[in-house]
Amino acid sequence: MHRLEKLFRPGSIAVVGASGDPAKLGGRVLRHLTSFGYSGRIFPINLSGKPVQGHPSWPNVLDLPEVPDSALIVLPAPLVGKALEDCAEKGILQVQILSSGFAEEGGEGIAMQEELARIASRHGMRFTGPNALGSISPADGFFGTFSSLLDTARPGPGRIGVATQSGAYGSHVYAAASFRGLGISRAIATGNEADLDVADCIDYLVEDAGTTVICAALEGCRDGGKLRRALLKAAAAGKPVIIMKVGSTEAGAAAAATHTGSLAGEDRIIDTVFRECGAYRAASIEEMIDIAYVCAIGLRPPSGDVGILTLSGGIGVLMADACIGAGLALPPMPAPAMEAILKIQPVAGGRNPIDTTAQLNGGLQIFEGISQEMMRGADLGTVIAYMAHLGRNLERFPPLEQSLAALRRNFPDRLVVAVMTHIEEIRLRLEALGIPVFEDPTRAVRAVAGATFSRVLQQAARAAPPVAAAPPLRLETGNEATAKAALRAAGIPVLPEHVCTSAEEARAAAEALGFPVVMKILSADIPHKTEVGGVLVNVADAAAATEGFHELLRRARSAKPSARLDGVLVAPMVRGGLETIIGVQRDPVFGPMVMFGLGGVAVELFSDVAFATAPLTPVRAEALIDAVRGARLLQGWRGSPPLDRQALAEALCRLSEFAVAHEDSIASVEINPFLVREEGGIALDALISPREEAARATAMAD
Amino acid sequence: MHRLEKLFRPGSIAVVGASGDPAKLGGRVLRHLTSFGYSGRIFPINLSGKPVQGHPSWPNVLDLPEVPDSALIVLPAPLVGKALEDCAEKGILQVQILSSGFAEEGGEGIAMQEELARIASRHGMRFTGPNALGSISPADGFFGTFSSLLDTARPGPGRIGVATQSGAYGSHVYAAASFRGLGISRAIATGNEADLDVADCIDYLVEDAGTTVICAALEGCRDGGKLRRALLKAAAAGKPVIIMKVGSTEAGAAAAATHTGSLAGEDRIIDTVFRECGAYRAASIEEMIDIAYVCAIGLRPPSGDVGILTLSGGIGVLMADACIGAGLALPPMPAPAMEAILKIQPVAGGRNPIDTTAQLNGGLQIFEGISQEMMRGADLGTVIAYMAHLGRNLERFPPLEQSLAALRRNFPDRLVVAVMTHIEEIRLRLEALGIPVFEDPTRAVRAVAGATFSRVLQQAARAAPPVAAAPPLRLETGNEATAKAALRAAGIPVLPEHVCTSAEEARAAAEALGFPVVMKILSADIPHKTEVGGVLVNVADAAAATEGFHELLRRARSAKPSARLDGVLVAPMVRGGLETIIGVQRDPVFGPMVMFGLGGVAVELFSDVAFATAPLTPVRAEALIDAVRGARLLQGWRGSPPLDRQALAEALCRLSEFAVAHEDSIASVEINPFLVREEGGIALDALISPREEAARATAMAD
Repeated sequence: MHRLEKLFRPGSIAVVGASGDPAKLGGRVLRHLTSFGYSGRIFPINLSGKPVQGHPSWPNVLDLPEVPDSALIVLPAPLVGKALEDCAEKGILQVQILSSGFAEEGGEGIAMQEELARIASRHGMRFTGPNALGSISPADGFFGTFSSLLDTARPGPGRIGVATQSGAYGSHVYAAASFRGLGISRAIATGNEADLDVADCIDYLVEDAGTTVICAALEGCRDGGKLRRALLKAAAAGKPVIIMKVGSTEAGAAAAATHTGSLAGEDRIIDTVFRECGAYRAASIEEMIDIAYVCAIGLRPPSGDVGILTLSGGIGVLMADACIGAGLALPPMPAPAMEAILKIQPVAGGRNPIDTTAQLNGGLQIFEGISQEMMRGADLGTVIAYMAHLGRNLERFPPLEQSLAALRRNFPDRLVVAVMTHIEEIRLRLEALGIPVFEDPTRAVRAVAGATFSRVLQQAARAAPPVAAAPPLRLETGNEATAKAALRAAGIPVLPEHVCTSAEEARAAAEALGFPVVMKILSADIPHKTEVGGVLVNVADAAAATEGFHELLRRARSAKPSARLDGVLVAPMVRGGLETIIGVQRDPVFGPMVMFGLGGVAVELFSDVAFATAPLTPVRAEALIDAVRGARLLQGWRGSPPLDRQALAEALCRLSEFAVAHEDSIASVEINPFLVREEGGIALDALISPREEAARATAMAD
Repeated sequence: MHRLEKLFRPGSIAVVGASGDPAKLGGRVLRHLTSFGYSGRIFPINLSGKPVQGHPSWPNVLDLPEVPDSALIVLPAPLVGKALEDCAEKGILQVQILSSGFAEEGGEGIAMQEELARIASRHGMRFTGPNALGSISPADGFFGTFSSLLDTARPGPGRIGVATQSGAYGSHVYAAASFRGLGISRAIATGNEADLDVADCIDYLVEDAGTTVICAALEGCRDGGKLRRALLKAAAAGKPVIIMKVGSTEAGAAAAATHTGSLAGEDRIIDTVFRECGAYRAASIEEMIDIAYVCAIGLRPPSGDVGILTLSGGIGVLMADACIGAGLALPPMPAPAMEAILKIQPVAGGRNPIDTTAQLNGGLQIFEGISQEMMRGADLGTVIAYMAHLGRNLERFPPLEQSLAALRRNFPDRLVVAVMTHIEEIRLRLEALGIPVFEDPTRAVRAVAGATFSRVLQQAARAAPPVAAAPPLRLETGNEATAKAALRAAGIPVLPEHVCTSAEEARAAAEALGFPVVMKILSADIPHKTEVGGVLVNVADAAAATEGFHELLRRARSAKPSARLDGVLVAPMVRGGLETIIGVQRDPVFGPMVMFGLGGVAVELFSDVAFATAPLTPVRAEALIDAVRGARLLQGWRGSPPLDRQALAEALCRLSEFAVAHEDSIASVEINPFLVREEGGIALDALISPREEAARATAMAD
């Protein structure tokens, strides 16, 4: 049994703060529990000890004749701590705290919330909230929530599990799902997440046999490791997770911070984590439900190859555009399949979409042959059939129904989707065959894409071998030279360079390297050398090298008198190759994340940069490179020779391992540029920012 | 009266090919006309002359006792030409041809279709189709179509006009609109468009007093000028046009070509034309209807500043993200408004979104004060109110209804949108107040964005002054030097350069310009000089200039022996500034379109390029520059000084005028690079490709 089973599906429940007034939360919760067929024992707790809404009550959980599986606490905030203690003493160890007035209101609420976490931790208790909405399990008749939705509608039982942080968000999701006839297995909203969070609930839903697909929504995330483990567990089980994370824009993130007091985090980081862990991110609640609707039939397409069979050329083109836009492919029908199709419908147009036109002289049964020729001929993952208004016509429907049923039966692992205006009866009949039905063509395509890529991402997440983190190291932080020495030791190629503390040394070093050389000021206090004029390129001869040494020191002293100067770095002048940026940023929630992008304006103008969790495997390093559009330049651009992609991938792997090994001491590493050449690659500059110390050093220097 | 009035709203109609068999198209059309309350006179035409479906018929339109306003032709394809002649002879000059079997099937169908166009043109007749679906005007009970939708549903009267090329596309649009309770003014599908096209129908709908908003969908466009005029007419009238164009991807375009035989055209060009002419392009049928739904209330927001008032923090963040993603702004409430709001609801969070939380101790009437403080305080264009499940609760609804009604009344030119799960009665009550209601938060935001930018685009289209095209010129086509001479004459700055036909001349020219210089081979037959090694940069002295002349001729002769060589161009070496590409491409449908992008990889890797119709006004040139993301580099990048944007805008204007003047002789002009400097800008290279001759010249040379 999962450790949260009693929370999601209690056999008996106490309502602490049950009220006789149905306008109060404690009254609403009790009414919802008693009204919808819940067969478990319900124990209202009310100080008076008198009957509440006609049910006997007890003044305290300690007075109960048995230990309920779980408790819902709906008391005013200042009373919640004591009630939680009482629950613990009674032995109720899975609790939902629906009371508000905690961290979301700031001030004292924050301290009160922290106290709840301490109480639970002391007693080995787990709880959702405070400020939670509760949970529902329609098949059990369990509606442990004060959601106002239940005033007018009640979600039915089904296969979709919903876990959200925000209560209103969650109830909107299951309401919208219900209104289109989709059933819910369990739904829960975790509120302020002083203890249990959405990741814990996903973990439960993965194990829950009644749940086929998981819909989740986060506003923030405090424990990146837990979220990753829950999503990877879903991937391992092959159970789709369709997820949303709000706060993706600056305005949204600001609003999220206001609302939940939790860090919205860098949206691209969380996007990366979702993808790596196999969770498919939906762009709207409606899209999340559309995808869950498709996944709930229990199969996802084995490939992104789609066939479009359409009564209308125009709608066929619309769907073709949408497929390409969503990353799906439309393989043209091979000649034998096309020949067979034209035998059935001589006026059929196109090779995919196949436009049968609305003139069906052979009748609707022609779709049986055509659709199967398509599926088999191009080995498709999905056939989408656009059938205009046939979904409203019960008289004409049977031959179409038979055609689609045969297609479904003969290709049991492929997806078949019908798009048409329709009545409920026809929709239900197709759904019973395992065929989702949509009215809007574009939404159908996006849902197919979601189901497809949900599977692709989970497959990739499963395939990723576990990566052993390197043992932690101690790092001597300092200037560019020490940074490069550390990176060289980690296996990243850097230029042969000389640290020079006198003009004489600089001249000798330059002569040893051969002219021209590059000279740079060396100081841990000057992380951005160009800003102080601290770099000289194309230093052409011995005299220039001597003068360059003095000039760099002059500039540095004038720009930043307090900086400790460690000397001048003399390096060979390098040309050619492609300038890239490789780096690592330690995310406060998700740990070290590797970054890759092109040098120049690509990163800043076009945000053409991608992230991946450290450490990288070679496969993940390749995927990271491919996620950057400008990486096409590595293949050779306009006739120039291809560059050493392998060397780049290796440097990314080495850097990622380095970052994990130094996770405790490093905030970020930036190698900018890392030059990728025809053979090999090389770090031309490097900056390592230590954790904590970094901020202090800057504060001192400025 | 509009010239197509009798087509859209005939007072009497002939059905040529009326059939007694309701399974046949001619039977269906007659049944639809006679079944839904059409009050006009209906004249079935059937060779037999016997009653059809109980209605008297005539063997030929020539036998009719009067001249009907219009005719619907549903005969087999080979009989249509004769029937069209007969209609003309009778004086029926507005006809819809629903018969298929023409250009869409290729072969003889193409010739038959051309013949129809000739007949009509001879008689001053206008017609839709062939292969059209017909038209409907629900308020008139007129359903002149064989659409199978009418078997089960009939669109009601309303304010939305629909014009599409594809019949199924059109019927899907009005079916989907109808199912959510939206009414249709007129709808028409133009089929193969041998004569009338969607642009003609838009032109009608702009003048149609019964239509408030126009939904249109194109697959191709053959007459760019007509489309522009129709859209600009709508902009002038302030009547929103929400438009779709399918075939935006290569796969989609291929399917479109198959379907309609018309050129899908460059999607970015049509996108540019829509935008310039004030038409808002929707991404899906559902989005088109959502936007039309908002526009149909008869007002569009005066600005893109949105306020979000929400019962749920999480949904507020979701909508905030969606607003930013859609280009809308969320101005934070100014201090006085915030103070007033906190007086009403002390626990309200955020400054926009305003999260009132679900704990409404003041009751739902608090929204009256809060929403008005928001609208007034930040001078918003729209307030979106997220009200969870209150749209399902008739008991609790009245105070919310009063709040929203007061907001609407006190700010009659601003948009108010409600987002909530809801029942029909509540939706209808809010719609009666002029308040659109959505269930999905993201769709609501996108619809608000569509309505807002539809207005913004139409305003800009109205504001654009008419541009007088320059008189046509004769152009001497040829090599880079003649191209630059032509451009210099047109007012575009080019480098001082010398055309040299001997090494001696080259040396002298280089000395006169001062070293270093650039030398380039000059030949109309070598449009891409770098491919043959035809450019030498950094030519440092007289000897190198002499040798360079010979070297360039050698390379050109070796790479392309057949090329006629006009000599060598000697130009000063220029450094610094920002390399851009400016060009003009003559689109076969829309004429000369100006293109702007950055040099380097930005255009090719990131497609960071924008188009505008030639000729440009200064305002449009500025907008064109701003449409390119990389144009931020003009402001000065990382401390470098700003560049001469004005000079760039002027060059774009001059080039656009040049292109219009030479429209008959030029296929394209590319100035690559056009260097924008701190002061001024300058064309470093230029290529003019003549129309027709271009292809021939290339064929000869290769």
